[in-house]
Amino acid sequence: MTEPTHRVGEASWDSWGDPAHAAPLTPSQRELIGQVLGIAPDAGLPRTPEAELRLPPGSLPPDARAALAAAVGDENVDTGAAARVRHAGGKSTPDLLRRRGGDVSDAPDAVVLPAGHDEVAAVLTACARYGVAVVPFGGGTSVVGGVEPLRGGFAAAVALDLRRLSRLVAVDAVSRTATLQAGLRTPEAEELLAAHGFTLGHRPQSYEYATVGGYAATRSSGQSSAGYGRFDDMVVSLRAATPRGTLEPGRGPSSAAGPDLRRLLLGSEGTVGVITEVTLRVHPRPQERHDEAWTFPDFATGTAALRALAQDGVRPTLVRLSDEQETSVNAVLAGEEAAPGCLAVVTHEGGAERVAAVRELCSDTLRRAGGTGLGPERVAHWRSGRYLAPYLRDSLLDAGVLAETLETATTWSELHRLRDAVTDALAGALTTPEGAAPLVLCHASHVYPEGASLYFTVAAAAGADPGGRWRAAKRAAGDAIAACGATISHHHAVGTDHRPWMEDEVGPLGVEVLRAVKDTLDPAGVLNPGKLIPERS
Amino acid sequence: MTEPTHRVGEASWDSWGDPAHAAPLTPSQRELIGQVLGIAPDAGLPRTPEAELRLPPGSLPPDARAALAAAVGDENVDTGAAARVRHAGGKSTPDLLRRRGGDVSDAPDAVVLPAGHDEVAAVLTACARYGVAVVPFGGGTSVVGGVEPLRGGFAAAVALDLRRLSRLVAVDAVSRTATLQAGLRTPEAEELLAAHGFTLGHRPQSYEYATVGGYAATRSSGQSSAGYGRFDDMVVSLRAATPRGTLEPGRGPSSAAGPDLRRLLLGSEGTVGVITEVTLRVHPRPQERHDEAWTFPDFATGTAALRALAQDGVRPTLVRLSDEQETSVNAVLAGEEAAPGCLAVVTHEGGAERVAAVRELCSDTLRRAGGTGLGPERVAHWRSGRYLAPYLRDSLLDAGVLAETLETATTWSELHRLRDAVTDALAGALTTPEGAAPLVLCHASHVYPEGASLYFTVAAAAGADPGGRWRAAKRAAGDAIAACGATISHHHAVGTDHRPWMEDEVGPLGVEVLRAVKDTLDPAGVLNPGKLIPERS
Repeated sequence: MTEPTHRVGEASWDSWGDPAHAAPLTPSQRELIGQVLGIAPDAGLPRTPEAELRLPPGSLPPDARAALAAAVGDENVDTGAAARVRHAGGKSTPDLLRRRGGDVSDAPDAVVLPAGHDEVAAVLTACARYGVAVVPFGGGTSVVGGVEPLRGGFAAAVALDLRRLSRLVAVDAVSRTATLQAGLRTPEAEELLAAHGFTLGHRPQSYEYATVGGYAATRSSGQSSAGYGRFDDMVVSLRAATPRGTLEPGRGPSSAAGPDLRRLLLGSEGTVGVITEVTLRVHPRPQERHDEAWTFPDFATGTAALRALAQDGVRPTLVRLSDEQETSVNAVLAGEEAAPGCLAVVTHEGGAERVAAVRELCSDTLRRAGGTGLGPERVAHWRSGRYLAPYLRDSLLDAGVLAETLETATTWSELHRLRDAVTDALAGALTTPEGAAPLVLCHASHVYPEGASLYFTVAAAAGADPGGRWRAAKRAAGDAIAACGATISHHHAVGTDHRPWMEDEVGPLGVEVLRAVKDTLDPAGVLNPGKLIPERS
Repeated sequence: MTEPTHRVGEASWDSWGDPAHAAPLTPSQRELIGQVLGIAPDAGLPRTPEAELRLPPGSLPPDARAALAAAVGDENVDTGAAARVRHAGGKSTPDLLRRRGGDVSDAPDAVVLPAGHDEVAAVLTACARYGVAVVPFGGGTSVVGGVEPLRGGFAAAVALDLRRLSRLVAVDAVSRTATLQAGLRTPEAEELLAAHGFTLGHRPQSYEYATVGGYAATRSSGQSSAGYGRFDDMVVSLRAATPRGTLEPGRGPSSAAGPDLRRLLLGSEGTVGVITEVTLRVHPRPQERHDEAWTFPDFATGTAALRALAQDGVRPTLVRLSDEQETSVNAVLAGEEAAPGCLAVVTHEGGAERVAAVRELCSDTLRRAGGTGLGPERVAHWRSGRYLAPYLRDSLLDAGVLAETLETATTWSELHRLRDAVTDALAGALTTPEGAAPLVLCHASHVYPEGASLYFTVAAAAGADPGGRWRAAKRAAGDAIAACGATISHHHAVGTDHRPWMEDEVGPLGVEVLRAVKDTLDPAGVLNPGKLIPERS
């Protein structure tokens, strides 16, 4: 009844995930997309073979290398080309475009693989001492530049790959908590928890690769957040190594003993410390799961229905509502006839009795709000492809289609203004000189009593300068989000790509507070430079 | 169906609340308590009449006074004795003992009453410039020394009374949020929200006096936290004045744009800024309320039942379970026959349909866990007295009884070990030389999937040095809590009284982080000195 706990293969260096899952377009799909977006049949963004990459020589000073080897063992300081290339960045479209073009100039000088908290601490001490930038690396799935090995003025940068921190440290079955090391990927974590009868319930699109430490560092939110909560709300306590020592905030299920310092580490994206261990709320593996599709006449009616669910406290495990455009494109991709209106996916998980009770309350609410239940069949296509959309992006790039996503969140009362503003910004920036408009799809998900997140998917002709075109679109969308007073990211984090809007987000004094925390914990400034916190001007 | 929105009278200077609500003991109650605790009939802690107080002259420098008058208007800088005495501290038992003894040496040099955010900011600027400690003051109900006007090495201290910040600024009925000024007391806030059909649902014992700004600054949690959540989880965004400028964190219903800076202000107890406005999640005034008492054979069975509710997500609006001692003492106070076992109070509020559905699930769970429903009647006494217990404390002091409460929280698996340790510590410290043991009562409340809070009420012979006796008991209980790895406060905050355990709570590096934030926002160090953050050693 829960997610597959299968382990996927090592991620490809130049595309999303396991090459075995690649999903090339059929010739007819390619033709249709080309017609819609105005792309010539022979367009396409070529890939550079790995053997032809121009990798600059590593610049790790010998004394730093020796100190790192002393910290983790010589065999765990990898300066080989394969490892460096695979830690050259994350999985944003700009990352993929750079790698297709053969540009791995940003690759770290070494990949360091510590085995536990103390070794992470020793690496940080060594990096602070020798002036080496250190970039924490979990699943490498950042789509905002969060793992780009920027040197930040230092002579060298190392990727701190946490894959060896892969233990389930403890399970408290009575309190339903589990302590996991940070480098555990979700399928591995689920496999370990399943042996105790538990699940985490965290299912972002990056599920196959992303790690529990990465989720904590970026304030991730998964597709089942309506039922299981966003990741930051699952964290009971955590442990982080910093160049100044260890932080272990979180006592009791909740506290009034000063500000919640867990929340300073959650979302800190490796800029003030490296999360090595998290104690999380876990759940019994659900006995039952029930999927149901619903249709609404339009997006406004559908979002009002989601709002009714969130505000009445009748929470399904998962709820998401596609707008008209996304509904019809998904129907085409599923080989179904495009129907008018907006499709919602609703899932309930849990004990049989509770699923039945909540499902009934939920269905009543949705019907009263103007929805029509369509049964479980229409959910099957979504479910089978729920982690596969990023693979499709690579196939689209192969066909000359620039495809990317971005997301935000706001209050219910501002939701439609925000959607219109972002849609207009993306359409304005990505319409080709010949007048071909991009496809802009949107869904609402991650519902809260006060509002929801909006997730945009855009597809457009790549053109001669796809990187430049995406930068312009991202800038326009980000400015539109900031002008609406919405958040620049609901669950993708900040990294490099959202940093220009951080001062809008938290104000200049908020930025100063973040800098003060960083200066205290990382006085040398070696931790993930160039991310999250805006540069001093 | 919701709480009374009545406004109570101005709080007494030397006891808990509105003198009209004082609840003197009957002669037979006094005799019974004296017998149980070994107190002579003529014992009792006398009160010093206000006219006999030895109030030291104010020491506010004339230039500081002029600057404050420029900030808020001369008529809003009150240096009169009545105002100073009423801002001399909070409502802990040590506070009450000091005032009974006529000691108001800690009174502030003036009470400053700003009218809005900009005036608060101007007061902070003036205090930073002239070196005057500034102690934010809401309802004055702190039981941990949070509003004690410590000078922290400065020549003078002012109480910053926020009562004039009493507006409902905005209501967003669609998103169900309301923006309230910080100085609003709960009954006034509920009255303003009721006009829009909303309620806050926050009902701590300090309900009559405490303010929304105070709740935010102390991470309050109310009796209905199972249904409405703790106060920090209700805060969508907030606004704070600091000596360095304004902070306004909180965009969208949630965000991944860096650490959640709202959480740095929540629980900061006026040490880094003054919260002037909060935007809160609100709820429709419930159509229905249903109270039900339940009995369990013992505390372990009862807490397992509460755990089942919290972990299954079947959340009543309110749930609390008294241990055997508290159950029998409450029965005596209600004039009922003492029954064996442990009594729980369960309340459901909301729409009729939802109340019925959740109530059924809840009752099933409690029955399966070994509980027996007793109907609504046994809840009536608890409900009518829910805000009155602190008044009883004053009557007990009149009778020579030292009575106080303290609270903590931990995981379900540690709950009983913690209860035993704290009970033993309190009993050990408060047994009289003649061998009379104190009464130590406990209840579990504020349930979470991972654990719960434990709330202790203790009554003992005051003896010749009640202040010293309480300090010893508090020290023993705090050490027991820290040794168990529990939090030093679940909802009373830190103030002066819990500061000795803050380094246990967040670690030395956590303390450094708090200091760094304070140094950034309050470089002069004038904001509520001596609270929350341990002194540099």
